Amino acid sequence: RVDGARLWASLTDMARIGATARGGSCRLALSDEDRQGRDLFVGWCRAAGCSVTVDGLGNIFARRPGRENHRPPVLIGSHLDTQPTGGRFDGVFGVLAGLEVIRTLNDLDLTTDRPLEVAVWTNEEGARFAPSMLGSGVFAGVHEADWALARTDADGVSVAEALRQTGYAGDAPVGGRPLHAVFEAHIEQGPILEAEGLVIGAVTGAQAQRWYDVTLTGVESHAGTTPMERRRDALLGAARLIDLAERTARAHGPDGRITVGVVAVHPGTRNVVPGRVFLTLDVRHPDDAEIDAIERALRDGLKGICAGIGLKGAMTPLSADAAVTFDPALVDSVRRAAAGAGYRARDMVSGAGHDACHLATFAPTAMIFVPCVDGLSHNEAEDARPEWLEAGATVLLRAVLDAARL
Amino acid sequence: RVDGARLWASLTDMARIGATARGGSCRLALSDEDRQGRDLFVGWCRAAGCSVTVDGLGNIFARRPGRENHRPPVLIGSHLDTQPTGGRFDGVFGVLAGLEVIRTLNDLDLTTDRPLEVAVWTNEEGARFAPSMLGSGVFAGVHEADWALARTDADGVSVAEALRQTGYAGDAPVGGRPLHAVFEAHIEQGPILEAEGLVIGAVTGAQAQRWYDVTLTGVESHAGTTPMERRRDALLGAARLIDLAERTARAHGPDGRITVGVVAVHPGTRNVVPGRVFLTLDVRHPDDAEIDAIERALRDGLKGICAGIGLKGAMTPLSADAAVTFDPALVDSVRRAAAGAGYRARDMVSGAGHDACHLATFAPTAMIFVPCVDGLSHNEAEDARPEWLEAGATVLLRAVLDAARL
Ligand SMILES: NC(=O)NCCC(=O)O
Ligand SMILES: NC(=O)NCCC(=O)O
Repeated sequence: RVDGARLWASLTDMARIGATARGGSCRLALSDEDRQGRDLFVGWCRAAGCSVTVDGLGNIFARRPGRENHRPPVLIGSHLDTQPTGGRFDGVFGVLAGLEVIRTLNDLDLTTDRPLEVAVWTNEEGARFAPSMLGSGVFAGVHEADWALARTDADGVSVAEALRQTGYAGDAPVGGRPLHAVFEAHIEQGPILEAEGLVIGAVTGAQAQRWYDVTLTGVESHAGTTPMERRRDALLGAARLIDLAERTARAHGPDGRITVGVVAVHPGTRNVVPGRVFLTLDVRHPDDAEIDAIERALRDGLKGICAGIGLKGAMTPLSADAAVTFDPALVDSVRRAAAGAGYRARDMVSGAGHDACHLATFAPTAMIFVPCVDGLSHNEAEDARPEWLEAGATVLLRAVLDAARL
Repeated sequence: RVDGARLWASLTDMARIGATARGGSCRLALSDEDRQGRDLFVGWCRAAGCSVTVDGLGNIFARRPGRENHRPPVLIGSHLDTQPTGGRFDGVFGVLAGLEVIRTLNDLDLTTDRPLEVAVWTNEEGARFAPSMLGSGVFAGVHEADWALARTDADGVSVAEALRQTGYAGDAPVGGRPLHAVFEAHIEQGPILEAEGLVIGAVTGAQAQRWYDVTLTGVESHAGTTPMERRRDALLGAARLIDLAERTARAHGPDGRITVGVVAVHPGTRNVVPGRVFLTLDVRHPDDAEIDAIERALRDGLKGICAGIGLKGAMTPLSADAAVTFDPALVDSVRRAAAGAGYRARDMVSGAGHDACHLATFAPTAMIFVPCVDGLSHNEAEDARPEWLEAGATVLLRAVLDAARL
């Protein structure tokens, strides 16, 4: 068993960095808060006897040697960055559960056969830089490093610049090395475990997700003098698309999800009919074919809306992550670890994307979910009970030990 | 007759300040560009022999003495500030037509009985600071000076600060003095004059307008894990309100106009269901009773939309300008001035708000409209032909001379 109190204390220390007024965390990727969080983590890892390397995308690897250090490591990873109004557990729990595994092994004076690594992946949230899961995506070869380094935030600052500013532009190559097994522990971010009174989810896979940029272009004109029937109001088009997106998601069964999270209105003054609107679409479904169908419905809908108002519309894919199935043997080891620790587990599919989803494309990967209160996440009120987190880290410890054995 | 070529040259000089890539102007109120525009105007006025005073709201008055300088002046005024993607004529024409009147009188060596003043009103557009027509509103006693000075832009900079930054925090008292007559020349900003082949509109009044702030509050949650039916998506509510606003405007006859020009989404990241949206409503109608009815429809609609999604909604009035009727005698003098200069004029009601609307609450006021190409305004492509502008300034000259006579 891990030390649940120590894990909770570290979560609490981390949550002080970028703490928000409403009890959440704001550590946007590669911001100064993120740097402070990384520094705190690196200090803890060094104190726990790990060697720390940083790669060219700022991914951090804290390594605890095993008996056979030429062998590919067992990696435990997640992220420390948050949404602007994020919670204290999303990502952070997975990273600090990894650290807690190391600390527990140190307490037990136990050396594994294979080396262990705890990873912090850069820009998992996709809040500051799009797309999400950027660091792990490059590590896994899903994205090109140059493309990822050139991504910019809303102020035009690139990932490469932000890495320099924070001092986390490391010199280790990004990826290109085998991992024996990958584990990520995470809060569920949905309501199922809590509703069923369970504390462990054995995650069998994750649903597909696609991100799009949409631009609608009309004609700026005067709010007072332009009759309604002469307007080519880009925002009216955006509004209709947002409403259509909601209906389209519902039309694709209980698992269809579409979110518009960003809207930018140009020129954005009260008495100008908007001439241009940028908005984002986040589309999810467990079934890749359904995602295709949703995309077609949105494209057709956008075309019809634009024709009705006299707008030009463009919908550009930014990222597309297919549905993921985790490694059956590793998922089974999570089930066994849960049973061994005395927890009833249930299989589940992740609604969110995770770094583990990218890593699963080239290494055996599995995830462990623990409940969060009311299934609420990406919200400052995100919460989880210490005993749930201790359970998750304990199951992680057992699964890791299993995988690290030759 | 005025010198149309000189007027055009001054318009062109002014348009160089804050020129945009697409041929428009960006001189946001009390920005550095606005300061440069003001400085240019003040220099021209001094060169034309005027004395210049600035009041506590940055309103500028360039005075040409008459024979009886204790008498209330005839005032010609408009504004030099623009929308962020504004045109070269909206406001500027009225100010520089006033200057052209002065220059023409100088050429003719003609002294009027009453003194003349050309005014530049602060923050007419309402783009940087809301509401619009702020400087003239305080001058006319419609707004309190302290309230106006405390208005802030999107970055939190107050009018008072911006006045200090630009050096246009003057020491003349704001208003509190009688004006014998007020004229404002302006582009129509609508399509009527051009469609009818006329170059002069005698403006009999302006429609009513109201501005509102609307906030919708839901619950931030995760785009991937939150089922559609559990969402309380503030942006979905905003989208429905924008669509409803458009239908409501159309339902109130050909003269009803509703515009949503500003939308701010919180937290504004791609994978968070928006928890809060701020948006603005600009409502116009020539009939005050219809505006009341539109407001009721919007309030009821907002309530229904919020109930349907589980949101809280608040709709707060920011400003309310009743419909205006200009002084019949002064409007008639505009008609006569047009006829005297050989132009066929038509009566019309302004769809836009103007500084003249506030001044009409305490002084005899009239406006002169000239066409603009395609009726397009609040757009960088705003355009007007030199001969239209010369016609407008010539009618202005004649009406002013008429009013300045004892
Ligand atoms: N786990 C998590 O919240 N990841 C953010 C990426 C996503 O939107 O799914
Ligand atoms: N004339 C003009 O464009 N004024 C701006 C204020 C308004 O929105 O009507």
